[in-house]
Parts: sequence; C-alpha cells; structure tokens
Amino acid sequence: MKEIKAGLLGFGTIGKGVVRVFQNNAELLEKRLGARLTLARIADLDITTDRGISVAPAILTTSAEQVLTDPSIDIVIELIGGYEPARSFVLKAIENGKHVVTANKALLALHGEEIFSAAEKKGVQVMFEAAVGGGIPIISAIKENLCANNFRSIFGILNGTCNYILTRMTNEGAEFASVLKDAQAKGYAEADPTFDIEGVDAAHKLAILTALCFGTRVRFEDIYTEGVSQISALDIQFARQFGYKIKLLAIGKKDNGEIEARVQPTMIPLNYPLADVDGVFNAVRLVGDFVGPVMLYGHGAGMDATASAVMGDVMAIVRNLDAGGAGRTPAMGYQRQNIAAYPVKAMADIVSQYYLRFTALDKPGVLAQISSRLGQYEISIASMIQPEQQAGEAVPIVIMTHEASEANIRKALAEIDQLEVIQEPTRLIRIESELI
Amino acid sequence: MKEIKAGLLGFGTIGKGVVRVFQNNAELLEKRLGARLTLARIADLDITTDRGISVAPAILTTSAEQVLTDPSIDIVIELIGGYEPARSFVLKAIENGKHVVTANKALLALHGEEIFSAAEKKGVQVMFEAAVGGGIPIISAIKENLCANNFRSIFGILNGTCNYILTRMTNEGAEFASVLKDAQAKGYAEADPTFDIEGVDAAHKLAILTALCFGTRVRFEDIYTEGVSQISALDIQFARQFGYKIKLLAIGKKDNGEIEARVQPTMIPLNYPLADVDGVFNAVRLVGDFVGPVMLYGHGAGMDATASAVMGDVMAIVRNLDAGGAGRTPAMGYQRQNIAAYPVKAMADIVSQYYLRFTALDKPGVLAQISSRLGQYEISIASMIQPEQQAGEAVPIVIMTHEASEANIRKALAEIDQLEVIQEPTRLIRIESELI
Repeated sequence: MKEIKAGLLGFGTIGKGVVRVFQNNAELLEKRLGARLTLARIADLDITTDRGISVAPAILTTSAEQVLTDPSIDIVIELIGGYEPARSFVLKAIENGKHVVTANKALLALHGEEIFSAAEKKGVQVMFEAAVGGGIPIISAIKENLCANNFRSIFGILNGTCNYILTRMTNEGAEFASVLKDAQAKGYAEADPTFDIEGVDAAHKLAILTALCFGTRVRFEDIYTEGVSQISALDIQFARQFGYKIKLLAIGKKDNGEIEARVQPTMIPLNYPLADVDGVFNAVRLVGDFVGPVMLYGHGAGMDATASAVMGDVMAIVRNLDAGGAGRTPAMGYQRQNIAAYPVKAMADIVSQYYLRFTALDKPGVLAQISSRLGQYEISIASMIQPEQQAGEAVPIVIMTHEASEANIRKALAEIDQLEVIQEPTRLIRIESELI
Repeated sequence: MKEIKAGLLGFGTIGKGVVRVFQNNAELLEKRLGARLTLARIADLDITTDRGISVAPAILTTSAEQVLTDPSIDIVIELIGGYEPARSFVLKAIENGKHVVTANKALLALHGEEIFSAAEKKGVQVMFEAAVGGGIPIISAIKENLCANNFRSIFGILNGTCNYILTRMTNEGAEFASVLKDAQAKGYAEADPTFDIEGVDAAHKLAILTALCFGTRVRFEDIYTEGVSQISALDIQFARQFGYKIKLLAIGKKDNGEIEARVQPTMIPLNYPLADVDGVFNAVRLVGDFVGPVMLYGHGAGMDATASAVMGDVMAIVRNLDAGGAGRTPAMGYQRQNIAAYPVKAMADIVSQYYLRFTALDKPGVLAQISSRLGQYEISIASMIQPEQQAGEAVPIVIMTHEASEANIRKALAEIDQLEVIQEPTRLIRIESELI
C-alpha cells in the first residue's frame, strides 16, 4: 500500500482538529483512499502546552524548516494564519516540491497570485477549501461539480461572528455594543474583533469566491467593505416591519463583463432561505446559468468543521498522487492563461434598492424637503414609515426606495444631511429583494 | 490542445439540456479544462422531432450501437433512464473501454454493483452526480470534500413531485387527489405518478446515498418505502398545530454497525431548515462526525439543473484523462474491497416518536381505552388534541408519543383498531424532532 506523508504547520485550534481526524478516522481514511496517509510532523512555536490530545513527542518540532525540508513529506498543511511567515513557508514548501493545503483566506486574498503561479511552475497543488465557509464544500462545488455553469451571482453569509451578533440583536432587540461584549466573553468574537465586524474577513473570502466563480482576478482592495458595527436595534426593528432581515452579505455579481464585489449589511426578505441562516452558521447561495440557484449551509468555522475541509483537500491530493493525476484541476478552477481581468464596478455605479433612516426634527414639511431632494436625483420612494411622534423631538423617518444608483443616493443624502431639520447623519442599508 | 469526445444516449429533456451546455458554454468549458470537449454523437430512437435546438444532422443516429462502438468516443452519457436497454448499453460502453456518465438512479439502485464491478475491471469511470438531487452536488460532496467524515445521518427531500404536492396541500389546505390532478396538468407529476408519489424514486436515491455515506451496500428492496398518497389535509393541519410540517423524507442512519434506510412522510419542526424547502426544490442534510450538519439545496430536477450535474461529471472525467488520473476516486467513494455489508435494521426495530390520528366514536371512555392499550406496550403520550366534538359523530383524536419502538406501536394499533369505538384505521406518521 502506498504511503503518503503530511506535515502540519500550526498546532492551534484547527491544527488540533486535523490531528483529531488523523487519530479518530485513520481507518476510514484508509478504506476510502486505499493508501496510508500519515501525519509525520507537526511544527509550532509552542510544543509544550497540553492540548488535551496525545501526540508522539518525536513528531513535534518548533522548527517549520524541519517540515518544509523533510524529503519524506508530500503534503504541507499550513494552519498558521496571517500573512507572514505563512507566505514564506508556503512558497518554500512549493519550492521544495510539496503540495500545500491551507485554510488561510487572508494569505490567498492578498498573495494568491504569487502562490498559485509558483505552484504551477513547480507542478504542485495548492488547495484551500477550508479558507471559505469552514466545513461547507463551496470551493470544490464551484471548481468541480458546478464548473459547467457561467455563474451570475454569489450571496454569502461568510462571517460567523457578525452573523452571531446580528442574530442576537434580531432575536433580543439588543444593541450592537452589548452583544459584542457578550460574544467576546463567550468566545464568539476576538478580543480585537475588527477583522470580523468590519467585514474584512468576509471580504477576503469574497475575493476568493468571485475569482473562482467568474474566472477573474479580484484585488482585495477593490472590494467595497462595510461592517456591522453601525447597525442599530432600531434598523433591525424597521427592517422587520417591512418584511426584511439584516445580514452581513458578501455579494458577487457578473454582468456585461463587469464584476460587482461588496461586503455590506443587507436587508433580505424574511421568507428567503438565507434569512434563516442564524447564529454562527454560514451559507452561500450561487446562481449558475444551468443549475439555477444552489445553497450550501453549515458550520462556517470551528475546530472540527474546518478540519473536515482541510482533510478533504489532503485526501483529494492523495487521490491525485495515487492515480498519477496531480494538478488535474487548476487552483482557481480555470486554466491560468484563461483567467480574465474583468473590471470591478465602482460603488458609485451600482444600482440597488435602499433603506434610508433619517433623523429629523418633528416639524411640518420635513418629509416634503426630504422627498423633493430624492426626487431631484431620480430616486423614487417605494414605501415610508413615520412612527407616531412626540412633538419637538427628533424622530426617525424611514424610506424604502425603488432601484436607484448609488451615486445619486450619495448626492441626495449629502444635501439632505445639510438640512436644518436633519439631526443625525442618515443611515443607509442596501436591499436585495430579488437575489438573481 | 487535447480533444475529448462524448457521445449521448437519449435525446429527451435532460439530453437536450446537455446539448445546450455544449452549445452555450463551449468557451467556458475550454477555459476551465484546457482541453477541447465535443459532443460527437447523439443516439435516440426519435431523431426527427423538432426539439427547438439546432444539431448537425450528421451527429444524430437512431443506433445506440454507433455511439457504443465509435472508437473516437471517450465518454458515453446515458440519459435513457429505466433498467433496459440502459443497463445493456452501459455495460457495453464499459466493455468497449468508455467512461460513463449517467443520471439513472433506478439503474444504479438495482444494478450498481454489476456496473461498478465491470467498470473497475476495465479501468474506466462511472459517474452519476445527476442521479440524486438534480443539480445539487451532493454525491461529489460525500465522495470528495466530506470524505474525512464518518457520517451519522442523511435526511433528504429527494422527490420534487411529492414536495410540490405536500407544499401545495400545506399552503392551500387542499386534499392530495385534487393537488395531484393539478400537478399532472401542470407537468409536475407524470400521467402514472406511482414511482414518485409512492416513494420509489426517493428510495432509489436513498439506496445510493446511504451506500455512499456509510461505505456499504444497501439493497433497494431493504428500504422501507411509504409514499404521500395517504396524507390528508387534516394531518397537515394537526401537524401545524403541534409545530410541525410534513415532508417526504429519505432517512439514512448508521448506528452500532446497523443501517436505517427508509422513505416516509415525516413530521419535522417548522423552524427546521428542511421545513422551508418547498415546491420542486430538493435538499439534503448530512451530519458528519467532524463537519457536523451540512445542508445542500437546489433544483432537484429539470432540464438545465440536471444537465449541469451531468456536465460536471463529464468535465471531471476530462480532467482525470488529461492529468492521467482516471479512476482517482472509486465510484462509491470507498475502495471496493473495503465496502461493508452492514445489516439494514428491520422496521420493527426502529425507534421513533409518532403522530397517531384515531377516528373514534364520540363516547365517554374512548381516550381511556386507547391510552390503556398504548400503556400496555410502553408507549407514553407526549401530547394530545381532541377537537371540540359534535355528539355521536366520529371524531379525530390525535396523540403525539414519546420515543417508542415500531414493533410496539404496530401491536398497540392492531389492538386499538379492533375496538368497537374505532371507526377507521388509525393514521401513523413518524416524527423526527432532533435530526441527529
């Protein structure tokens, strides 16, 4: 029986999950693969902390170099995270002829091109199912099964922290700050939660998904990114009154040779399947020209779910090696020479429906002042709520628009926010009511 | 550039979808594959009907033999359906060294073993993503990405006709017979709908999924199959009162080396994601020991969605051929010599919660008679509804049980249905309130 050896860089939470798969499911792996797959080396700066899992001391090392240069190791699993030294390690592994499996979305979103190019030159594979959607097999679905489709759109709930916070705000009517604090206490949010709550993590993942779906390169910097920290309980409550739920959506679209790529709080209809994806769950909805809409749902993070995705990739490489078919599918699903550079649409050029929450003094004629400014910029009103008012106080006025261009909305709001009756900057949330 | 040729058997609805992919997405296919994939031959008994699609007359033939013996054809796509001549054609294709892609669940559920064994001997691949769940990439998810998991359970909504009928019965309060008639008029149900509504189609698909998930062989005859024709609007209404929806579920479980495999109308909690899968959509929920729950959702049938799945398989074979890795993943996801023969649990041995609807004369003491029989067989009552009664008429009494064995339930109902006060055979629907 052929033996394939893997080496692990990073013995953190996900690393521990991977070790657990090797230990608990060794028999299953062999039954499926018909080859012996072993974990030969684990490198981490910390090899002394008790992780509650028994590992032969001889395979532990503090030197990544020992994994990267070990000629018996065929596959390097990179679970360090971040840009450096992960980037250097991955490039070194490739240079040494090793196949690479990584869960590192930040690395791929920023340095994917360099890594994939090096891998292709060297004839090794780089796989990264765990980088997006945790255990959900979304990357493989795009690259493999659904690969006969021209994709039209991607809508993803890709960050468990944001979804957990929005779900609790929705269910409890609580404000962002208090839920975040509790999420941190419970371990659902990092001590510094910026990457998650400001949408950076979701944007890394979207950069990968849009590239895979549309056969293009999407620079992370070109993705418009807006997080959830500005969402208030009031917006969530108004959304419900109109029949919507607020989710942090990663949105990718291709239309007329242009890409839209943005991460933003989005109102989606309550009866829509994505609206039911609550808590730390992730989901991705794709629309292909033949398959139509497809949704995949599951744990978007966590030790075991992510380890499942990592090991799926490792086993795919073993199968390729065993059958002599290494590199059967290119890293990004297209032959590299066929990857296009479609322009990413500027935010000013997108068209959307909008939820606008004005905070105005309760005076006669306020609505007329607002609506005339909207009208000047060809923004038409679909519906409006002005809750019962206490005379003299600042009151919310909520307007849902028909489709309008972002540029016009921005111009109208700039003028409206200058009006004397307007007390606070107007809140804007985009609506996706027909997920194409 | 390498050229790979496919031949198509069966130019019906799905066949037309496949031709449409070849025509509409030729450029995409080439960009992804880096090889030229062409449809060289189409065989159908009817090559004269106008299908609204333009095909070079020279590639049409009424002789399957011409496809099966053409030495230039690498891949045969079988879309004839049914057992024969599909079985003979597939075996002939394999014998002639051709790879096979099929959407034929009935064929695989009954003759899979013979076909896969022949293919392995000959060193060719048989792929069948389109056989279960239409465009949903469920088979590949099990065989490839999630293959590091020991699966615990599968719950599938796998038959669009049944789901369409149940959805309309639920939304409209209509009875089965009238909805079926309308579904037939609209083309959502066949003129002879038996295979669909009696659960046979779903059972074919479950035979394939249980085998793939659990690494075993499941004989189609061993799957308990109960369709939706006995479901009444009254049951749907009571289900809702208790917080449940009725769906035709295909259920597969593995526990202690035994398999459960059954297709049955099932009550599932309203707030459960599968409960929202309505109309002709299909969905499959899997639970793996590492990935946890995963759900895949999409069009379970139809020309284009099914063609998407067929072409995903064709492209996978092209990639394997191109990279020299044919046969990298065994047809059923496990090395053949490692496929087990776990016993399928007899229905009498399963344990479930039950919905029981008795039709009894409105007399004092009826409930006592029923509940004492249930108690004798260790069936305990979780809740009960006895709607307001019109004296002297037969009235429904609905009981939801705690977990009980099917054997005991059957014995208790046999006795209860003999009682003088019982007017009709008692209706039984199994409940799955914790989808493990």
